[in-house]
Amino acid sequence: MATLKVPATVPTAADDCEQLRKAFQGWGTNEALIISILGHRDASQRRAIRRAYAETYGEELLRSITDEISGDFERAVILWTLDPAERDAVLANEAARKWQPGNRVLVEIACTRGSAQLFAVRQAYHERFKRSLEEDIAAHVKGDFRKLLVPLISAYRYDGPEVNTRLAHSEAKILHEKIQHKAYSDDEIIRILTTRSKPQLLATFNYYNDAFGHPINKDLKADPKDEYLKTLRAIIRCFTCPDRYFEKVARQAIARIGTDESSLTRVITTRAEVDLKLIKEAYQKRNSVPLERAVAGDTSGDYESMLLALLGHE
Amino acid sequence: MATLKVPATVPTAADDCEQLRKAFQGWGTNEALIISILGHRDASQRRAIRRAYAETYGEELLRSITDEISGDFERAVILWTLDPAERDAVLANEAARKWQPGNRVLVEIACTRGSAQLFAVRQAYHERFKRSLEEDIAAHVKGDFRKLLVPLISAYRYDGPEVNTRLAHSEAKILHEKIQHKAYSDDEIIRILTTRSKPQLLATFNYYNDAFGHPINKDLKADPKDEYLKTLRAIIRCFTCPDRYFEKVARQAIARIGTDESSLTRVITTRAEVDLKLIKEAYQKRNSVPLERAVAGDTSGDYESMLLALLGHE
Repeated sequence: MATLKVPATVPTAADDCEQLRKAFQGWGTNEALIISILGHRDASQRRAIRRAYAETYGEELLRSITDEISGDFERAVILWTLDPAERDAVLANEAARKWQPGNRVLVEIACTRGSAQLFAVRQAYHERFKRSLEEDIAAHVKGDFRKLLVPLISAYRYDGPEVNTRLAHSEAKILHEKIQHKAYSDDEIIRILTTRSKPQLLATFNYYNDAFGHPINKDLKADPKDEYLKTLRAIIRCFTCPDRYFEKVARQAIARIGTDESSLTRVITTRAEVDLKLIKEAYQKRNSVPLERAVAGDTSGDYESMLLALLGHE
Repeated sequence: MATLKVPATVPTAADDCEQLRKAFQGWGTNEALIISILGHRDASQRRAIRRAYAETYGEELLRSITDEISGDFERAVILWTLDPAERDAVLANEAARKWQPGNRVLVEIACTRGSAQLFAVRQAYHERFKRSLEEDIAAHVKGDFRKLLVPLISAYRYDGPEVNTRLAHSEAKILHEKIQHKAYSDDEIIRILTTRSKPQLLATFNYYNDAFGHPINKDLKADPKDEYLKTLRAIIRCFTCPDRYFEKVARQAIARIGTDESSLTRVITTRAEVDLKLIKEAYQKRNSVPLERAVAGDTSGDYESMLLALLGHE
C-alpha cells in the first residue's frame, strides 16, 4: 500500500551517486534530477546511495543536499532520504524539545509503528542524540502528558494476534467507569493504553462500543478543545484507523490558511513506503478531491514536485 | 570476572548430548555427569547442546532434565541451562505474577543488565509468554511500586560514557529536595532514576554526596523497614555497586534460618558468567569466610555440587 514508485531497472548506487554529484555541481542545482533519483528509491536503495556517496566523495550525502537546496524542499528531501528509524528519531527529537500540548508527533510514532520498528527508533535516537528518547520526553514534557507519553514511547508491545476476550470485557468496563468519572488521566486508563497489544486494544474498544452504545472516542469528546482528550483520541485513532488518522492530519495541514508544510511533509515522507495509498483513498473519500490535486494546489516548485513524486504521481 | 570454568578442550555438542542422554537413562540418574557437563559450558555452548539434543532425540533437553531430577537441584540446572535473556524472562515472570513489596527481582533485572540485554529479556518475554513484560508488571503491581517498576523495566537507557555535569548538579538538588520533603514517590525522583544513563546517575549520586554530606542511600533510610524505600535503595545499589548488592542478597539468603534457596540459586546462576568473582571477593571481605564454604555449609547433595561448580570450585 506504498505509493513510492521505483523504476523496473534501478541504476547502481555508484551511478546514482554520480548523477547526484552532477546535480549538485556547476551553476545552479539540478533539482529535477535530485527528485528523479531520490524520489524513486526505496529505503535500502537510499541507504546504499548514502554509503556509496560518503565513500566516493568523502562527504555525507545529507550535507551536500543541505548545502545545495533549502526550505520546505530541503526538509522533504532530507527527511525522505533518512532511514525510517533515523527519520522518526529526528522527528521525535524535535517534538520532544519543542513540545507543546497540541503536538501529536510522539503519539504518531509510538502508536503507528510496529513494536520492532519503535524500538529501532529508540536505538537510532541513542546513536544520533547520545541520550534516550524517553529521557528527553520525560525531561521536557510535564504533568498528565508526561504520565501518558513516556510509557507510550517506551512500550514494547506484544505483537502476536492473540486476544483475551475476558480481559477485553473487564478492561472496557474499567475504561468506561473512569471516563464516566472524567478521570481521564487515571493510572488504569494509561496502563491499558500503554501496555496492551494492538489486537487486544481493538477487542477492548469493540466491546466498549457494543456494551455502552458509543465508540470510546465519542465518550472522550466531553470537551472537544481539551488537548489531553484530543491526545487520547489520537492514540485510539492511530491504533484503530491509522489511514484515517493520517488523512485528517493531511487535510488539516492543507486546509489551514498558509499550509502546514511541516505536517504535510511528515505524513508524506513517513507513509510513502507504508500506507500512503490507503491514506490517499481515505482523502479522496472524505474530500471528494484527490490528495495529489490538493497538494498541487497548495504547494509549488520543487517542493511540490518532490511531494507528488512520493505520492506516486505519474 | 566470571567464575564459570570451561575445560580447555570442549567436547562437541553432539558428544555432550550423548553423555547427557546416558546420564538420564537406565536405573537412576547420573547427576554428577550432568553437573560435569552443563556446569562447565558457557551460554553459547549450552545453546548448541540444547539445539543438538532436540534435533537428535526429538525432545527438549529441559524437558528431559525436568523428568529426571527435582527440587532445588532441578531449578538450579534449569535456570543455568537457559539462555541469559530467557532465564531473566522466566525470573521476571515469576516476580511479576507473585509480586509482593519485598521482591527485588525486577529491580535486579532492570538495573544490573545492560540496555541491550534488558531489551533482549523483553523480547524473550514476548516469545515465551505471549505478552509484554511491562504489561504483566503493570497488571499485577499497584500504586507507587507500579509507578516505579514499569518505567524501570521499560527503559532503554543510553549506554555511552558521556556525563552532563550541570545536569548532575541540578538533578542531585531535585532529589535532595524531594527526599527532604519525604516525597519519595514524586514524579521527578522516578523520572531521574528510570531514564538517565548509568554514568549520568553515578555523577548525580556523587554530587549529592559532595553537596549534602551524605550518600543518597543514607537519606533514603528514614524508615529502614519501609519496603518502598528499600526498593529505591536497591535500585541505587544495583547501579553503583552491583557486586555488593549481590553479596548482600547471597549473605541474607544463607543467613536465614532455612536457607533461601531461590535467591541463592538466582544470584549464582545469573552472575556466574558475569561478575560472580567480584561478588565472591565482596563476600569474603564482608563475612571473613569464602562464599564457597558458606554455600557448602548451607546446602547439600547435588544442589550443593551444582552451585559449587558454578562458583568455580576446584
